[in-house]
Amino acid sequence: MRAMVYHGPGQTALTDVRDPEMTDEADAIVRVEATTICGTDLRILAGEVSSVTPGRVLGHEAVGTVVDVGSAVRTVGPGDRVLVSAVSACGSCRYCRVARYGQCLGGGGWVLGRTFDGAQAEYVRVPFADTSAHRLPGGVADEEALMLSELLPAGYEVGVVRAGVWPGDVVVVIGSGPVGLAAMMTARLFSPSRIVAVDHASSRLGAAREFGADITVNNAVADPVPTVRQVSGGLGADVVIEAAGRPETIELALRLGRPGARIASVGLHGKPAALHLDEQLTSDITLTTGLADTSSVPALLRLLDSGQLDPRKLITHRFAFAEFEHAYDVFASSADTGALKVVLTP
Amino acid sequence: MRAMVYHGPGQTALTDVRDPEMTDEADAIVRVEATTICGTDLRILAGEVSSVTPGRVLGHEAVGTVVDVGSAVRTVGPGDRVLVSAVSACGSCRYCRVARYGQCLGGGGWVLGRTFDGAQAEYVRVPFADTSAHRLPGGVADEEALMLSELLPAGYEVGVVRAGVWPGDVVVVIGSGPVGLAAMMTARLFSPSRIVAVDHASSRLGAAREFGADITVNNAVADPVPTVRQVSGGLGADVVIEAAGRPETIELALRLGRPGARIASVGLHGKPAALHLDEQLTSDITLTTGLADTSSVPALLRLLDSGQLDPRKLITHRFAFAEFEHAYDVFASSADTGALKVVLTP
Amino acid sequence: MRAMVYHGPGQTALTDVRDPEMTDEADAIVRVEATTICGTDLRILAGEVSSVTPGRVLGHEAVGTVVDVGSAVRTVGPGDRVLVSAVSACGSCRYCRVARYGQCLGGGGWVLGRTFDGAQAEYVRVPFADTSAHRLPGGVADEEALMLSELLPAGYEVGVVRAGVWPGDVVVVIGSGPVGLAAMMTARLFSPSRIVAVDHASSRLGAAREFGADITVNNAVADPVPTVRQVSGGLGADVVIEAAGRPETIELALRLGRPGARIASVGLHGKPAALHLDEQLTSDITLTTGLADTSSVPALLRLLDSGQLDPRKLITHRFAFAEFEHAYDVFASSADTGALKVVLTP
Amino acid sequence: MRAMVYHGPGQTALTDVRDPEMTDEADAIVRVEATTICGTDLRILAGEVSSVTPGRVLGHEAVGTVVDVGSAVRTVGPGDRVLVSAVSACGSCRYCRVARYGQCLGGGGWVLGRTFDGAQAEYVRVPFADTSAHRLPGGVADEEALMLSELLPAGYEVGVVRAGVWPGDVVVVIGSGPVGLAAMMTARLFSPSRIVAVDHASSRLGAAREFGADITVNNAVADPVPTVRQVSGGLGADVVIEAAGRPETIELALRLGRPGARIASVGLHGKPAALHLDEQLTSDITLTTGLADTSSVPALLRLLDSGQLDPRKLITHRFAFAEFEHAYDVFASSADTGALKVVLTP
Repeated sequence: MRAMVYHGPGQTALTDVRDPEMTDEADAIVRVEATTICGTDLRILAGEVSSVTPGRVLGHEAVGTVVDVGSAVRTVGPGDRVLVSAVSACGSCRYCRVARYGQCLGGGGWVLGRTFDGAQAEYVRVPFADTSAHRLPGGVADEEALMLSELLPAGYEVGVVRAGVWPGDVVVVIGSGPVGLAAMMTARLFSPSRIVAVDHASSRLGAAREFGADITVNNAVADPVPTVRQVSGGLGADVVIEAAGRPETIELALRLGRPGARIASVGLHGKPAALHLDEQLTSDITLTTGLADTSSVPALLRLLDSGQLDPRKLITHRFAFAEFEHAYDVFASSADTGALKVVLTP
Repeated sequence: MRAMVYHGPGQTALTDVRDPEMTDEADAIVRVEATTICGTDLRILAGEVSSVTPGRVLGHEAVGTVVDVGSAVRTVGPGDRVLVSAVSACGSCRYCRVARYGQCLGGGGWVLGRTFDGAQAEYVRVPFADTSAHRLPGGVADEEALMLSELLPAGYEVGVVRAGVWPGDVVVVIGSGPVGLAAMMTARLFSPSRIVAVDHASSRLGAAREFGADITVNNAVADPVPTVRQVSGGLGADVVIEAAGRPETIELALRLGRPGARIASVGLHGKPAALHLDEQLTSDITLTTGLADTSSVPALLRLLDSGQLDPRKLITHRFAFAEFEHAYDVFASSADTGALKVVLTP
Repeated sequence: MRAMVYHGPGQTALTDVRDPEMTDEADAIVRVEATTICGTDLRILAGEVSSVTPGRVLGHEAVGTVVDVGSAVRTVGPGDRVLVSAVSACGSCRYCRVARYGQCLGGGGWVLGRTFDGAQAEYVRVPFADTSAHRLPGGVADEEALMLSELLPAGYEVGVVRAGVWPGDVVVVIGSGPVGLAAMMTARLFSPSRIVAVDHASSRLGAAREFGADITVNNAVADPVPTVRQVSGGLGADVVIEAAGRPETIELALRLGRPGARIASVGLHGKPAALHLDEQLTSDITLTTGLADTSSVPALLRLLDSGQLDPRKLITHRFAFAEFEHAYDVFASSADTGALKVVLTP
Repeated sequence: MRAMVYHGPGQTALTDVRDPEMTDEADAIVRVEATTICGTDLRILAGEVSSVTPGRVLGHEAVGTVVDVGSAVRTVGPGDRVLVSAVSACGSCRYCRVARYGQCLGGGGWVLGRTFDGAQAEYVRVPFADTSAHRLPGGVADEEALMLSELLPAGYEVGVVRAGVWPGDVVVVIGSGPVGLAAMMTARLFSPSRIVAVDHASSRLGAAREFGADITVNNAVADPVPTVRQVSGGLGADVVIEAAGRPETIELALRLGRPGARIASVGLHGKPAALHLDEQLTSDITLTTGLADTSSVPALLRLLDSGQLDPRKLITHRFAFAEFEHAYDVFASSADTGALKVVLTP
């Protein structure tokens, strides 16, 4: 089959590889009908993810049809249309038992396109299929389900739910890339009184308004503190979701929260940030970090199925599998192309 | 001043009474600019509330302007436009310390229009003004704030919050009177996948659809169980809010919930219901009852102020104070008049 | 092998049956080294549990050694000493994903000794072994682990945790049979200020004092309300755990709680109880019912291993397998024999 | 009266000052019968707390008898024995309404001995007496109640409760000064499987064992990571309470927690710490900071009253008021004197 293969830093190419085979009775083989590229794939390509070795098929998000299952698989079978989660779950370790699949100790977690061959391919082997693939309701389109493989759960679980957004809250989201937009869209599920989007690129703030931001601040030209204070009765935000991943954005998050604020970091950080406990100690802050578990997928699927959530507006570009290399270029140049999510279909 | 006075069962009349005077340093006197009638007022009128004695000025919901405050009042002062909560709070007892004002042990709770003269009058004395009156943001209209004196908090706190409505849930609301409609409207704040309204009057179910119900079932003509099963993958509802107050509706609520369901009773019950623990024991149910605390008023006011909640559609009739007796008739005949909330203004 | 077999109402006998065989790749076969009898087994024997048909090997609690596992089993293997949970868990259904194994939709739940042959036998087949058997730490004795198959989790999860016992609470436990005693012992883990045990048999109240009750009330001779009021500043209990299973005990539970009380029913109820919503409505009660999930087993095992919990005092009698029929008699006559838990070993 | 007065950096002395007078109808005047010195007082003395100006009477912890109350005070009166909380609460601001008194916006919070004259005096004026003084049960001794003015609530609320200690958890407490010991003592209320105390002074680790630590590690001589891993099945601690207040201890806390750990900082930090989000991001950590609210005082008083908690072992030295200056010296030299809490009585 054809698949996007990592051949070392800076080198990825659509390559002929052998079809995946089942190696465990809990596996399923899925024919990929829609897949996408994640910011993490760009980090792999940049050589920043040391656990990915040359020869690896990339990709951890897919929707497709089951073509084969191992003998221990009970919940999906050949012909089933499924969402493949970016996070595999053994289902029985300490973390899986409390639905923290991202921390799976039994061989799961983020393995697809990292330590296992991934989903940017015609076929993908899905480990622990009973807990890692979700049968799709009839009314849910491939594209919208695909946004649930990782992106929406990341913004929702690691941002919105961990921060405890509540009706009436003032919520700040720092960073208006795909994860930040997913956080805004799913923060709306809890009816905050205001969502303030902060980014240093005006083009991204335009998108933010479409994804639920009531107010936008370009922090390249203005300090967001006065705006946030003004809409929060002088106190500061109830919740800050940090989705930009830089030391200065986590420090900004801490400055924007009111005493008692919940601050959730969803951004991928490459460097340590200073934690001003000397100043923040007295502020009753709660700061959370983490990985998507995709434990929210069943609930999010119900929201798709009932038409209450439409993540398709995250999709800016669509390509055929044959154009995969070009799709990487478009996605990597998002500042110029405006790419949020690109969808690849056979 | 003129006030609606309870003169004994079946007898209430617009009567000349003395203006209220402050009797405690924590009191405020408020000039009433909008008030309304509650189903409980009809129960008082029917002689069913023994704590209300003849001569009492009725009413526990008001919006108005502070004209005087006691020397211990810090947070509101003359000229402030305020929402008067139906629930007064001493602020220091064990229950008030955890924001369960409805259970206040220090002289508060539901006292207005019950053991204290109430708000269906030109002026009302508000006890514990610091904790029982809320200054209104400039952009919030009297009428919409008035719905927060008791009705929206009842549906929201006792129904939606206590039942823990969560994004993607299937929610059933039994009873489409004002409290049931308030529950539907505020359940929407948490983005359930479906709200199913159940009532035995078709006219009320029409209103339910306007307040957020996706599906309605007239249980005078059809058992709602199959419908609820069908929209919940065969399991039953995640949440049932019982807002009808009859033994058979609480029993229906227990039948409609899935194993693990949270069932919140908001209805006023006049008779005991049978609790089929022999059948329900194995169902992991959680059943809650209770009183509004109005602890959610600040958050709901923020939602009004940001335009995310519009409770004015609960208001079906408007009258001048002089028409108060007629307003009672219209409200009491809601089956004929379609009255939900009637608003009285000077 | 020899096993206790249900031969119809009133008839159970130690019988020669075929050894169990694996029928699924997720199964394990465990050699039973300690087992016990549950009150539910007596109900089966009385013919009250219609899902149990003649020929069934009884028993759902065991500790033993794995002798064989199916090819899909990852976490336990031959030679491992394991605790067999009374509740089997498929691990991937909606309920298992949130650790509510008692409601498993995928073929688990309480199946051992009910719809599958059980653990009162030399060998038992354990379905879904990865999620339904727990490897034992070296320092934990068979007998103490056995109390975690169902009894302690029932008192702890369905009683203590669901009711939310909190440091400083006044806790009432109604019923001082094995489940009530398990609730008292595990309520102590949260340091309530007082535990009040209520039972109508003085002998049981003596046991209650050994399991953590500070105060006991024989409700055959005295109304417990004044005592509970007195130790709770006049308010009523913060938490009531109902472990007696009669209509009058659930009604007593509702009377003993303070406004805002959490009331957890752990008792097995054979008849409906009256729910006085007309009186309780205004009391902000939360009433929960349910089944043990045994989701707490890993935490309870850590407490056994560190010596912070000693459930062996629940064991009043010990027998060899050959004496199984006599053990049933002793257990069934607990009023005379004082039996709490009887342990059977080869 | 005689009182300990701050006369500028390094200068504090027992000084004659005027008796306090009520300035607000919500005030109470309390005759101090026991008071103590806090680490914060030493920071004031070192000139590090800029909000404290010369002439201020120090001290924020007291037990005594009410001698006078303002006209708005309802819950305490002359002759009542009371605990004076270190945290005053207006009772009606946004934070007080949710029992976060430490963040009071209405004139409370930590004011005693900081911006108001304090409790190291014969008499103290207590603002907002209804919410800031607690009547003592008859059986509770002055000394033990005094430990609830701030110390136990700090360890319990900011450490144990905010971190969510749960039965069976492995808990690490870094720092074995008074706050760390209070955290250990109150962590025991939730029955962790193990408490590991980490400190760089062996003498303090001896105390730790008396306050509930099962295992101690002197991190001046050994890295605590292997020990914590070993008692936690290789994973790391469930909860880390950081009570030492240095950048390296917060970084150690982050290293000691397992993925998903809850880390509560109770220490007073003078400098920023590095937050290794680049490494910790993937670890699902929750980090909390904060101030004591003393909202737990009623529950802790119930535990004292029922004899389930004995904080008197925190008291190492007792002095008469006349020896106040000496008491400061003893407390400031705790490394030599072994002082934990010193109690001063008339």
